[in-house]
Amino acid sequence: MDCVFCKIICKEIPSDIIFEDDKVMAFMDIRPVSRGHALVVPKEHKADIVETDDDVISDTVLEAKKIAAAIQHALHADGFTISTNRGEAAGQTVFHLHFHIIPRYRRDGLTAWPHQDTTPETRSQIAAEIKKQLL
Amino acid sequence: MDCVFCKIICKEIPSDIIFEDDKVMAFMDIRPVSRGHALVVPKEHKADIVETDDDVISDTVLEAKKIAAAIQHALHADGFTISTNRGEAAGQTVFHLHFHIIPRYRRDGLTAWPHQDTTPETRSQIAAEIKKQLL
Repeated sequence: MDCVFCKIICKEIPSDIIFEDDKVMAFMDIRPVSRGHALVVPKEHKADIVETDDDVISDTVLEAKKIAAAIQHALHADGFTISTNRGEAAGQTVFHLHFHIIPRYRRDGLTAWPHQDTTPETRSQIAAEIKKQLL
Repeated sequence: MDCVFCKIICKEIPSDIIFEDDKVMAFMDIRPVSRGHALVVPKEHKADIVETDDDVISDTVLEAKKIAAAIQHALHADGFTISTNRGEAAGQTVFHLHFHIIPRYRRDGLTAWPHQDTTPETRSQIAAEIKKQLL
């Protein structure tokens, strides 16, 4: 298995672990986008959120919530972003499900992606396409 | 209750709803950052993920997973980002828990936040601060 997160989980690669139980591990990102950027991963290897069983997703997200609150408090951050990416186009580089916890600070310079204007017609048409898929 | 998402949920404000059950609703973001940007919210009003009960978080995230997969398929996207923000400093503007589903497309121009280099000493020191808080 050539997965860097699996190697971190089995401690073949050292990391700064901040939480570990039998299902979930959390460790510091080595190339943080902000001070305290951590990753929360299920121990079981699955490529992304779509590939992962619901109970494992729940366990991982609920730990991420607790850890994010602890990080905000410990580092005196002003908030946080929790995110997960699916696919290279979304910036995923390690294909083992992971949630980023990115502590946010006032004036940290991390800018939101630009919003676009849409028409009600466009939104309604896109919603119809999606609803067909959800049937 | 002066919450725009509560007004959307009770249909006082119209929206392009793509999913609804007794606990969760999903609708199109009116100012999308990419084609198909949707929001998934619990019907119960809580400010953010830290304020929300674990079972409600699980219900919401697991619906977000299903809906994100459907959006990716319906709109021929190449992946997606699922994220939630806590606090104004993190860009939260509506203080009712919501998960963004942002479909991602090759060359969509949405760039990742810049990474910083850190030393092992810094990472280890930050990890120690966080672990103290997690005890």
